[in-house]
Parts: sequence; C-alpha cells; structure tokens
Amino acid sequence: MTVTLNCDMGESFGLYKLGDDASLMPLIDAANVACGFHASDPDHMRNTVLSAKMHGVKVGAHPSLPDLQGFGRREMKMSRQEIVNSVLYQVGALVGFLKAEGMELNHIKPHGSLYSMAARQEEVAHAICDVAEIYGVPLFGMTATFHETIYTQRGIEFVPEFYADLEYAPGGILIVTREHPAMDPDLMAERCVRALTDGKGTALDGSFFPVRCKTICVHSDTPNAVDIARTVRSAIAPWR
Amino acid sequence: MTVTLNCDMGESFGLYKLGDDASLMPLIDAANVACGFHASDPDHMRNTVLSAKMHGVKVGAHPSLPDLQGFGRREMKMSRQEIVNSVLYQVGALVGFLKAEGMELNHIKPHGSLYSMAARQEEVAHAICDVAEIYGVPLFGMTATFHETIYTQRGIEFVPEFYADLEYAPGGILIVTREHPAMDPDLMAERCVRALTDGKGTALDGSFFPVRCKTICVHSDTPNAVDIARTVRSAIAPWR
Amino acid sequence: MTVTLNCDMGESFGLYKLGDDASLMPLIDAANVACGFHASDPDHMRNTVLSAKMHGVKVGAHPSLPDLQGFGRREMKMSRQEIVNSVLYQVGALVGFLKAEGMELNHIKPHGSLYSMAARQEEVAHAICDVAEIYGVPLFGMTATFHETIYTQRGIEFVPEFYADLEYAPGGILIVTREHPAMDPDLMAERCVRALTDGKGTALDGSFFPVRCKTICVHSDTPNAVDIARTVRSAIAPWR
Amino acid sequence: MTVTLNCDMGESFGLYKLGDDASLMPLIDAANVACGFHASDPDHMRNTVLSAKMHGVKVGAHPSLPDLQGFGRREMKMSRQEIVNSVLYQVGALVGFLKAEGMELNHIKPHGSLYSMAARQEEVAHAICDVAEIYGVPLFGMTATFHETIYTQRGIEFVPEFYADLEYAPGGILIVTREHPAMDPDLMAERCVRALTDGKGTALDGSFFPVRCKTICVHSDTPNAVDIARTVRSAIAPWR
Repeated sequence: MTVTLNCDMGESFGLYKLGDDASLMPLIDAANVACGFHASDPDHMRNTVLSAKMHGVKVGAHPSLPDLQGFGRREMKMSRQEIVNSVLYQVGALVGFLKAEGMELNHIKPHGSLYSMAARQEEVAHAICDVAEIYGVPLFGMTATFHETIYTQRGIEFVPEFYADLEYAPGGILIVTREHPAMDPDLMAERCVRALTDGKGTALDGSFFPVRCKTICVHSDTPNAVDIARTVRSAIAPWR
Repeated sequence: MTVTLNCDMGESFGLYKLGDDASLMPLIDAANVACGFHASDPDHMRNTVLSAKMHGVKVGAHPSLPDLQGFGRREMKMSRQEIVNSVLYQVGALVGFLKAEGMELNHIKPHGSLYSMAARQEEVAHAICDVAEIYGVPLFGMTATFHETIYTQRGIEFVPEFYADLEYAPGGILIVTREHPAMDPDLMAERCVRALTDGKGTALDGSFFPVRCKTICVHSDTPNAVDIARTVRSAIAPWR
Repeated sequence: MTVTLNCDMGESFGLYKLGDDASLMPLIDAANVACGFHASDPDHMRNTVLSAKMHGVKVGAHPSLPDLQGFGRREMKMSRQEIVNSVLYQVGALVGFLKAEGMELNHIKPHGSLYSMAARQEEVAHAICDVAEIYGVPLFGMTATFHETIYTQRGIEFVPEFYADLEYAPGGILIVTREHPAMDPDLMAERCVRALTDGKGTALDGSFFPVRCKTICVHSDTPNAVDIARTVRSAIAPWR
Repeated sequence: MTVTLNCDMGESFGLYKLGDDASLMPLIDAANVACGFHASDPDHMRNTVLSAKMHGVKVGAHPSLPDLQGFGRREMKMSRQEIVNSVLYQVGALVGFLKAEGMELNHIKPHGSLYSMAARQEEVAHAICDVAEIYGVPLFGMTATFHETIYTQRGIEFVPEFYADLEYAPGGILIVTREHPAMDPDLMAERCVRALTDGKGTALDGSFFPVRCKTICVHSDTPNAVDIARTVRSAIAPWR
C-alpha cells in the first residue's frame, strides 16, 4: 500500500499571503489548488501551478463555495445544480492553468464547508461527482460519510484521507474550525503512523476510531504547517 | 468568401436578465460567451453553452477585465501577466462548461475595455495572444489596430469583424459606449452589405473608411438586438 | 389606524435593471433601499435616494447576506457578530447617501434570507436589533415570528407587515421564492383589505390566519409590481 | 506647529492578516481605516474602530477604487460621479461603525491609485471634495498637487502629509509601488526631522525638494512598520 501527502495550496490572494507554499511544495505529493472562490486569484493560481510543476507535485482542484470573505468556511444553501456549475467553473479555470503548463488534473477535493456539506448531504456529494465524472478524476474525501458512499456508488475513484493536523471527535468525526491552531508535529506524525499501521485514529477524548487512508492531508494555513509536513513525511516514508 | 454572424451572449447575472438570448441564439453562427468577470455566472454560462449546443452555434470565450459593476467597460491598468492570467482563468472556466457538453472552444474575443485596450496597447494585444496560443484558437478583432498587427505577427488566425450596431468615427474608429441605443435594423443591414460588397464602412459624418470583414457582430444588449440580427442575417445571406 | 405601503427599491446593479422604480416610487410611502450586498451599487443607491427624496418617500435600509449572485436568497451560516457587522456596514453606507441629501434613516428591513433567518433564528433577530438600536429606528417584520418577539422584547419599535404579492402557507407562514411570479392585482388588493378589515389572511389552501399589519409590502421584482402597487394603494386608501 | 503620525490601518481581510495593527495603534495619532474596497471587511472595520477608540486614536476613512484583488493599486477609469458615489458608500459604511462606538469621523484620505489619481486629475480631486464637504472633514494629501490646489480652492481643510517610508523622485514626486519594502527606521526618522526642521525632503538621487507637512504617514504593510513608527514617533516628539 502506498500513501501520499497532500496539502491545500495557493491560498494567498492579491497582496495577502497565506501559507508557506514555497517550503511546503517540495515536501508534498499532491497539491489541492485553490480556485479563486475561497482564496487565490488568477496570478496565484498560475504561480502555484508553476511551482507544483517544478517540484513534480500533482495538482488537484480545491473548489469552494463562493465566499472569499468567509474563506469558504460558512455554509450556504445552494441547489445541486448551482453547486455543480460553481465547481465546474472553478475546476475549468484551474485546468486552463494546467493546460498552459502541459499538465493534467489529478483529482478534485472540495474545500471547507463544501467538503463538510458533501460529507453530510447526499445531494452535495452528487454535485461533486457530477463534476468529477466530466474530468474522469478521483475524489479525495472522508470514509464513513457520503464522500465514500456516494462517490463509490457513482463509480468514481474514492481516495480516503486522514487529517494530520485536525482533531477528531469520538467516532472519527472531523472537527473543522475557521482558523487552525499550531499542532505538535511529533504527535501528529505518531497519529499518522498509527493510522497506517493499526488503522486507528485517536479522538479528542482518547478513544479510538477506525481509519482507512490512502492520503494524508496537512493544511497550509496551520501556523507550523511546514514542520508538521516535514515530520509527517519522514514518519510515513515506509508507506510513501 | 463566407461571413458569419457573431453575438455577445450569456450576459445575464443571477436574477438579472440582459439580452434576449433565446431569440438571438437561433439567428447567429458564433456566440461570444461571457465568463463571469463583466457579466454572467456559472449557472448562466452552463445554460448559454447548452443553448448554443442545441442550436449548433459555435462558442467562443468573451473574457473581460474584472469589473462586474462596470460591465467591463471601465479601463483598468493591469500588467501583461495579470491580463494573461485573468483571461486564462475565464477561458478555462468556459472550456469546463464546453467539456461538459462535448464541445470545443471556437475562438476568443475580449470584451469591452479589454477589447479596446488590445486595439491600442501592444502589451494587451500580446496578453490576448498568450492565451490564444495555449488554446490554438482564432481571435476576433478590428482591422488596422494592434488586434490585426500583433495577432497576425504572432501567427494567430485573425478574424476581422464589422459592427452592425455601433457607429464609427471618421477613419473607421469604433465608438464604444457604456450603454447601446436602439438602431435602425434596415440601415444596419445596408451598412453590412456595403461593407461586404464594396469593402466600405460609413462613418458618423458620412465619410467612408475601408472595411475588411469575416464576421459581423451584433450586441445582445442593444435594445432591438433581435430585429437587427434577423434583418442583418437575411441581408448577408449571400455571403453566409 | 394608519397603514403605509412599502416596497423594496433600488435593486438594479450596474447595467442591469430590476424593477420599475420610476413608476413605483410615486405610489409608495416607504422605500426599502438595497445596500449593495444582494443588489444595487453606489450609483443606484444614490439615484434611488434622490428619487425617494423627490417623491417624499421615506427611506429604510434593506440589508442582505453578502451574496450578489444569489440575490441574498440563499441562506448562509454566519455568527451573530458577523451579521451585526455586515448589516451595520450596509446601513452605514445607505446613511451616507441620506446624509448627502439631508435625509434621515426611517427604518430597517432585512432582505431575503436574512429576513427569513431573523424570523426563525433568535440570534439573527438579535443581530438585527443590535443595529437598529444604534440608529434608533423601527424594524419591519412578520408577526408571530422572532421578528415580533425579539424586536419587541428588545424595546425596538416593531412594524408588522403584510405581503400583498406573496402566498402564505396555512398558519400564515410566508412562502419565499427566489423569483416572484406575476399576481392578480385585484385579488391582492382584496387580500390586503381583508387583512385590514377583518385581521385575516388567506392561505394557499383557502384557510385563514390572523393578520395584524401596519405596513403592506409590494416587491419591485414581481413582474406586474406597478399594477399591484397602484391597485393596492387605491384599495387601502381609507387606512393610509 | 504640531504634527501627527497617521497610518493606514485595518487592511486585513477575512482570514488574511496584513499589518501589525495591534502594535501600531498605540503609536499613532490618526488611523486611516480601510473601508472594504481595497482591503478589510465589516468584521475588521469593527475591530479596527474599537481598537482606535481604546487607544484614543482618531479615525479617518481610507476609501479606494473597487479592486480587492489589486489592493486598490491599479488605476481605473471612472467618472467623477462614480467616484463620488463609490467613496460616499465607503465613508458612510465606516461612519456606521464609528456611530456604534460614539465616535466622529476625523478626516478622509483616499487610498492607493485613488490617492495618486486625485493628485494628478482635477476631476478626481473634485470627487473627493464632494464627499469631504458632505461630512465637513479635512482631507489628507500631498502638497503641490491637485490635492492641495483643489481641496484648498473648495474651502476644505487640507492637511499636507509627508511619507516616512516611501521614496521620492527628484522634485518631490512620491514613488508608489504595489508592495512596500522594509526601510531603515533611523534614516526614515532623520528624513522626517529634516522635513520638519528645514522643510526639505531628500529625493532618491540625493537632491532636495521643499516639504510642508502637518502629518507623517507610515504604511502598515511595510514589513518593519512598527519599528519605523516607533522610531519616527520618538524623533518627531518635539513637534507632536
């Protein structure tokens, strides 16, 4: 079994910088590139794609709800068709930059609230599938949610991910916060290794939950993201 | 020699309707589809592409400066690279909707101020070419401007267009206004025929200027756009 | 008892026109003026305020969730403080235009989903109050919802409104749709008169529900809004 | 003669942080607060106003061209009336937050390209005056430009400012760049002192130009802004 390291990248906007992409890009296998709806703009997208190419990193789309101010982390009520069109717009825009560099789209991974909504609402999961089908690419997501059931049922390759830098509630429910605090890199690496070795995650209360993972995610907006990525990368070397 | 009829389409936004696209689509050969920066949104883009497909109309991208409030009709100072990235983003987004329908991008035609800026500023014309090269598609534009000289010099197919519904100043300089008044359809058709027969355009002061045209443009936001399109279409039938 | 006629106004944006404000303004008593988040822009706000002044119409703020594409009709999850700040920003902007014309803010009435959310979610109703308190103005809203209970409990003047052009479900629950169809003006006027005379509204299934109203609302984006406003205005003359 | 220290503040946006406002606020006399068009959002505006209040700092509006991605540093062609309305919207929004805290608007200082355009284009300078007149507040600006001539001619109090952290070309022409590099605090302080003592500024080529200044500006997005502000503040203590 092999495991990859993925990271949300290209989340700067105009003059605003977010994440130490320059340091992270050499450490990861796949970049989930922001498409301008929660973060990024055409200039940052171009540069992020160029940097990924230079480091041999695969590029996936990281589409979001249309909410720049809220960084895509505020839920919005949109119909399935609105979500499909909105995601297709963003993925298409990213694919334009990939085409400019002779690269292919590797996967799609919805961002923030769109990700959580797809986990809990069947219609949203279907909307994501509608776009993945058009591009014939895998979807990254969480096991034991509509990510897994709907994506799989629709015949789309489902790549289960484990979060290196987020806490889980008992039962393996991911705790998503608007801002991400720094985390202890060694503890994070240890959790990833346990997930890969024993198939077990540790919840906030110390209880275990089952984990199946093919990719591990680090957030670039976690303050010490580079340390976490470096430490996790070393720790999961046997599986990469 | 054949001539096509093109029209700026899909310029509605959210609840806001602009242009009688449903009536215009069956009359035209090529649609310049708004990409969300001066008009349109993912839902309108999807529907416009679907309607074009249904009527066998070719789809080109109609990218703009990023100015929804000004409908892309206010000049902005942007670097060549910023324009390239901004246009590439929009074209990519449109190509996503085309891919969903199994269609190909037919051409690119910049909108509003971006169009005028490319006519007068070499760097802007080059920016447009940078994107056209990535997609290998022709560019629509005006003769005797940087559209013609730069596009041609860069080896990109240049499709000269004549405006059925705008006035020209002496010397053939197009007069671009933020809002378009209604025009006399018969007079407009007569002008198109003269342009095709004699290679002559009539300026506001009655003087003539040379015209070379392979496509004729009607604006969907001209109040009587459908009448103009229908009348012009009939009049140019021998050349279509 | 006196009753006023209010209307959502100034909902055009850039080149996009929505609503026949020129015809409606002379017919109404109070305008709920869009503040740029679901519709309008600084130019339309200025012109709408000017037009209201010319016709002696009182101006209230019509703030929205930040969603121009969705016309403020898609719910978003925002904290109370985010809503307060967002609404305060919009109300302040409108008050700037009022100050330019020597006018005072008359009331606040949230738009679309923000209106419905305030009806059903206590925290949202409180957020609206937080802003109304700063300006010391009344709030328009629906009886038998958190509009009435929270606004009143906070000591803010609550102005109950009845919708001339929307349908109600049994029990008096307003049915809010993204687009508004044309309605029969005479039937609408009859409903308003019954509401004022008998204190009764008619639901879609023919059942009655209690109505208490001090202002009647007509939507400017209902296709035949002018007819409805004119007919309702005549019918409610005894109470105006 | 007294001199104040002013700083552009509140230029964060959503999750994006720009400038160490917490450290700068205690050091300055007047904050030019971003109004959401080049930077900031309702939440950051609220917090910036609160922080200014806590530190006894006066608050001015820092309105911009509508260009979040370009941080208001890309020129746009707008009519005088469009600029008036756009600036009035922003100033009104800020005044809403001031009203919430029982504060008064202290001044207006246009941001970025709007500032440079007002210096060079009479119509833009007039547009800024149109808004200042409504609020009866002074305008910050540069001597020997339309800032000084038009503002003064219109009878508006003109507060000339000297830039502590920007270079000047010979003749005293400010060099505005999209991003600001770090500067030597001692050199900057020395320049300010010379400007106040001798009425002389030093251009990039070492030549002198006349300076008249009542306020000194430090940019919060200069990397070492806090050091510059602290050093300049000490150096100009005799005049504060």
